[in-house]
Amino acid sequence: MRILVVNPNTTATMTDTIAAAARSVASPVTEIVAMTSASGPVSIEGYYDEAFSVPGLLARIAEGQRAGADAAIIACFDDTGLDAARSMTSIPVLGICESALSLASMLGSRISVVTTLDRSLSPIEHLVHRYGKSRQTRVRAADIPVLSLEDPNSGAGDRLRSEIRLALAEDRAEVIVLGCAGMADLARQLQTEFGVPVIDGVTAAVKQAEALVSLGLSTSKRGAYAAPVPKPYTGMMERFAPGIVAAD
Amino acid sequence: MRILVVNPNTTATMTDTIAAAARSVASPVTEIVAMTSASGPVSIEGYYDEAFSVPGLLARIAEGQRAGADAAIIACFDDTGLDAARSMTSIPVLGICESALSLASMLGSRISVVTTLDRSLSPIEHLVHRYGKSRQTRVRAADIPVLSLEDPNSGAGDRLRSEIRLALAEDRAEVIVLGCAGMADLARQLQTEFGVPVIDGVTAAVKQAEALVSLGLSTSKRGAYAAPVPKPYTGMMERFAPGIVAAD
Amino acid sequence: MRILVVNPNTTATMTDTIAAAARSVASPVTEIVAMTSASGPVSIEGYYDEAFSVPGLLARIAEGQRAGADAAIIACFDDTGLDAARSMTSIPVLGICESALSLASMLGSRISVVTTLDRSLSPIEHLVHRYGKSRQTRVRAADIPVLSLEDPNSGAGDRLRSEIRLALAEDRAEVIVLGCAGMADLARQLQTEFGVPVIDGVTAAVKQAEALVSLGLSTSKRGAYAAPVPKPYTGMMERFAPGIVAAD
Amino acid sequence: MRILVVNPNTTATMTDTIAAAARSVASPVTEIVAMTSASGPVSIEGYYDEAFSVPGLLARIAEGQRAGADAAIIACFDDTGLDAARSMTSIPVLGICESALSLASMLGSRISVVTTLDRSLSPIEHLVHRYGKSRQTRVRAADIPVLSLEDPNSGAGDRLRSEIRLALAEDRAEVIVLGCAGMADLARQLQTEFGVPVIDGVTAAVKQAEALVSLGLSTSKRGAYAAPVPKPYTGMMERFAPGIVAAD
Amino acid sequence: MRILVVNPNTTATMTDTIAAAARSVASPVTEIVAMTSASGPVSIEGYYDEAFSVPGLLARIAEGQRAGADAAIIACFDDTGLDAARSMTSIPVLGICESALSLASMLGSRISVVTTLDRSLSPIEHLVHRYGKSRQTRVRAADIPVLSLEDPNSGAGDRLRSEIRLALAEDRAEVIVLGCAGMADLARQLQTEFGVPVIDGVTAAVKQAEALVSLGLSTSKRGAYAAPVPKPYTGMMERFAPGIVAAD
Amino acid sequence: MRILVVNPNTTATMTDTIAAAARSVASPVTEIVAMTSASGPVSIEGYYDEAFSVPGLLARIAEGQRAGADAAIIACFDDTGLDAARSMTSIPVLGICESALSLASMLGSRISVVTTLDRSLSPIEHLVHRYGKSRQTRVRAADIPVLSLEDPNSGAGDRLRSEIRLALAEDRAEVIVLGCAGMADLARQLQTEFGVPVIDGVTAAVKQAEALVSLGLSTSKRGAYAAPVPKPYTGMMERFAPGIVAAD
Repeated sequence: MRILVVNPNTTATMTDTIAAAARSVASPVTEIVAMTSASGPVSIEGYYDEAFSVPGLLARIAEGQRAGADAAIIACFDDTGLDAARSMTSIPVLGICESALSLASMLGSRISVVTTLDRSLSPIEHLVHRYGKSRQTRVRAADIPVLSLEDPNSGAGDRLRSEIRLALAEDRAEVIVLGCAGMADLARQLQTEFGVPVIDGVTAAVKQAEALVSLGLSTSKRGAYAAPVPKPYTGMMERFAPGIVAAD
Repeated sequence: MRILVVNPNTTATMTDTIAAAARSVASPVTEIVAMTSASGPVSIEGYYDEAFSVPGLLARIAEGQRAGADAAIIACFDDTGLDAARSMTSIPVLGICESALSLASMLGSRISVVTTLDRSLSPIEHLVHRYGKSRQTRVRAADIPVLSLEDPNSGAGDRLRSEIRLALAEDRAEVIVLGCAGMADLARQLQTEFGVPVIDGVTAAVKQAEALVSLGLSTSKRGAYAAPVPKPYTGMMERFAPGIVAAD
Repeated sequence: MRILVVNPNTTATMTDTIAAAARSVASPVTEIVAMTSASGPVSIEGYYDEAFSVPGLLARIAEGQRAGADAAIIACFDDTGLDAARSMTSIPVLGICESALSLASMLGSRISVVTTLDRSLSPIEHLVHRYGKSRQTRVRAADIPVLSLEDPNSGAGDRLRSEIRLALAEDRAEVIVLGCAGMADLARQLQTEFGVPVIDGVTAAVKQAEALVSLGLSTSKRGAYAAPVPKPYTGMMERFAPGIVAAD
Repeated sequence: MRILVVNPNTTATMTDTIAAAARSVASPVTEIVAMTSASGPVSIEGYYDEAFSVPGLLARIAEGQRAGADAAIIACFDDTGLDAARSMTSIPVLGICESALSLASMLGSRISVVTTLDRSLSPIEHLVHRYGKSRQTRVRAADIPVLSLEDPNSGAGDRLRSEIRLALAEDRAEVIVLGCAGMADLARQLQTEFGVPVIDGVTAAVKQAEALVSLGLSTSKRGAYAAPVPKPYTGMMERFAPGIVAAD
Repeated sequence: MRILVVNPNTTATMTDTIAAAARSVASPVTEIVAMTSASGPVSIEGYYDEAFSVPGLLARIAEGQRAGADAAIIACFDDTGLDAARSMTSIPVLGICESALSLASMLGSRISVVTTLDRSLSPIEHLVHRYGKSRQTRVRAADIPVLSLEDPNSGAGDRLRSEIRLALAEDRAEVIVLGCAGMADLARQLQTEFGVPVIDGVTAAVKQAEALVSLGLSTSKRGAYAAPVPKPYTGMMERFAPGIVAAD
Repeated sequence: MRILVVNPNTTATMTDTIAAAARSVASPVTEIVAMTSASGPVSIEGYYDEAFSVPGLLARIAEGQRAGADAAIIACFDDTGLDAARSMTSIPVLGICESALSLASMLGSRISVVTTLDRSLSPIEHLVHRYGKSRQTRVRAADIPVLSLEDPNSGAGDRLRSEIRLALAEDRAEVIVLGCAGMADLARQLQTEFGVPVIDGVTAAVKQAEALVSLGLSTSKRGAYAAPVPKPYTGMMERFAPGIVAAD
């Protein structure tokens, strides 16, 4: 089984961290193919960055599917481009926010998502609402720039810990979800420290992608995710030219 | 007052229709500046086309704001790229779905949106839900390709009429919203024929854009729509390079 | 275009303030006709006052429509009598709460309404819920009697400012809505002071009334707002006798 | 124990029917005091009639409370004036829609309300939503004018039966609520005929009013239903002058 | 009229308190038959205890119905086994949480439930949500073991009072519901002390059970609560053998 | 890894089918331990059967955990006893309804659950609502007794197919979930026949149980699922004596 993990942040070191996390939980028979998007912002922080990361992300997913991927994961907690990717492909496509929330709600009744920046609160709250978890979930921001998560001296860990403490005290959180890609190691540490489940989205998505592939389940090509209608795309460079993959 | 209307479908004749509709209702002191996106699909039908239309759309909005636009309208019923555009600018940005639903709910208690294709149902239903109107709104598709609306011989009008008849009978619709850009003239005819309000999104957005500008109201730059953090964007052509406009 | 603004509070000085606010944003071709209800409480504070203000309010709207009004605005933030007025007329009728919330949700993701008294919280919360904005809106009371807003020495401004500060800090508010009629000037000042959009309902309603009239849209007479069935009304004085205006 | 039942429809024969229904279920120690509102429409059909019925209704409730009523029931399925009445009094005030829905949801999982006219659908749907029952309740109209219920030859019974049959088949209704006052006898017959619980609001309210009084429970005077602030009421006849009853 | 009150906590002294509360409000013609479940936990604190209390509880209800009970009340605030009991019987079955919330929402707009232990918060929040009251209700725990309510020296009363004070201040509570069985006397005291309605579930249920019986209303045997299909039950002792009572 | 699959229906042949399904998708390193509950109904059809199946089910889960299970699955689509089991254990416990819905919503926007009997509709609708999927999910019953699924000549397959056809046509279903345990083989056939994803809950749960165990995630012992308080259990036979497993 081959699972494509696309980092829509165009920062390759972040992709390395994500790939390591993915591999740390993948089944022995799963090959993780990690790719960095070739175009877009170095980090996705808010709606604007999200918009520019989608074409490069979709190009990678099309590329990956042509190369035989059985499932794809979009490694950004905003589930950026998820609907478009599902329309484009006939393989399952997973978002790490949806994946993390799905598992979280099997482990406890109240969930707190701890993300990076204030500007990410609203995009994530909209996702939580759309996935039907708003009654039991609170989203918090720890005021950490995304790329500082890569830097051990940034104090990001301390700020995350403070926010988790508040989540436990004020939200009565039973499960913590880390609202950013690339925090699998940290999740394990925090789980030990705080004694509650702490979920990293990338690893959650890898296991659910394996689940879908094993079960022979794939994106429905009826309705919302029907294959795009072939049509001219104006003014797109080669690199952005939409690589529509026929759904069979 | 200058209002920018961007057609994210890269079909210039459609922009002409939209511009004419916008001008037909604009105040005498409002200048309508209509622009066709320079890149993306010729018509937006579903999530995939949406994703590729956003960078070109945002480039036009940035361009328009630099040229002195007081407000911007995104002339696609999926409200494509609306959040990103709001983050980018300090002027009000309006979606035609949100604009149409806002007015519709002032005129009646039950709303039916009649859109083009089945694959557009889910994107629009998500918007309706997000705008808080799902309890009173039903979305229907008339099975019409977007560009056939431009063609008087396509039978599109007949199919719309059939679907409106069903909306009146089965949904107890009190107000009809046409779920596509460029149907202002048709809206007026249908309103006369069916004796219920029929709302076209583009004209609805023009008047509400004028309202916001007159009132001195603009996009909040706090929280969800805070100005993007300046950062490198990898692999984007000049044309896609994000033209971040500082919020003051 | 003639827009009727009815103050259902029977305090004429308040009507003057409201009329001035309405005129300050009306288009040059719009005539604002401001009327004070001839019967009911001097100020509307809670459900009880609301109930007694409706017959007088409806009488004024009927009078205004007979005199050629193209749209009517009910200048009380409880949107008092709005449904009844819509049933009665064939012109658009706007509530200032609905109008303010409609614009607010185009400008930011989280809204705080700051109203006057505690007893107004529940009526407004019910409106917010009905208009589909409860997920993104919090209602707060600044503990100010309605008529003290007319008195510059009442300290009302200070209490409003304190409550707005709390809204920004605790609710992460991105947009402020002032939950009372007659605060247009104050709204402009507060917007400058706090650097976020501050919306006054009366001015918001005037521009949206102009929008509806320009667009040729009016209250649907099908379903919820169908014209009342003519029937005897017992024991009503002349002044309260319902002036049903036929919907055509 | 004395329970006031106010018919806000100014049709005395209807009050007789309602009073008989109330007495048929009241406890032996309960005195039912039935009053017809002295002003307003002869029947309440939709939002407009509702508005004009409230002042007369409130006057009767104030009168009844002064005369020693322990609880009051508003005998119109729109729960007309309920919030205002609760603000005004220190005794419990019950609406027949709320009372019927409360009991209905103890008897089955899916509820169908069968009311009279199409124009009553929206007002009742708003109530159902507000009372938190919209997920399990559907509202239907049988196309019967309210006063025709008094006339045995009107065919109203047949039309109700047809609509109940549809509710059972299409809505999978487990409980039927009759959405009008004065149908207690009919409810009993229909319950026998259809083999599912059929609830009449007036009788449901009488028993719950007895419950509240027996339990020593009364309207909270904190927050939403705090006693009105004494203030001048302009232009109201004696009969409409608000008789504020102090909450102790 | 005979009303069965079953205490699913297998602590007989608690049943005595509950029975006394029930009798203190029952009509003179109502006989209260109080029974302690013969099997299960001595007190129900959370989901686990709940599960083991159900078979014993259902056995008592079957026994009670065979002995002529006209209605049954399950005296545990988790409404333990309520759906199963309704399926099993043809008499009305009431939960004390549902009964308390039904009355509470007739008395005020904001409700705070004060229960015993943290682990009971989620079960009760799920009930509140299911009964459609989550928008207006907050659930709080006073950190009191259930059986300490029986012990006057446990300090339970003080902790309840503190939590009620917080509910009034922070939740703007207008009505308090005590989230445990057997607190009727305390409810009366607290109502006097705090000046807001304080509701005890057992007494609330007794009066609503009387209401349903008087009205000739009973559990619908269509759909959700259809009589169980007769079938073999493996490995159940005599005592647990399901006593299906045919619904006619 | 050892995954316990408990069939709460006390029909051993059904357990065999379920075990085969579980094994058909389990990873090579996963051992499936399938157990039939020792007490309770031979098939679970509605709330009543559910209640009597829980003690036997919990006994099996306690037994399984003592024997070293890493996760447990409750193989009944009503997710019977799920909350109690989670409270009792420190391993993950999965319901097949929750598992199926979680995967379904990653594959399409509209889901139809096709279950067996009418009486199961309400229990499943409550689960769908609780899991936050009610906006996108419709539950249908094919009128098939649970045990007839075991019988190839029962016509059950034909009735399922008819109902799926209706789901596709009327609900615009994009994904089908089979609302019963033991239909994995049939799911694969139906997926091929209808060309949309068809999900069986048991297999969905097995893969998600593997996911949770691989990720080192387990039930939160804070709040809703805190370990039960040790206490006497009255009148329970040895077999039902709650085997509380301490959460560490």
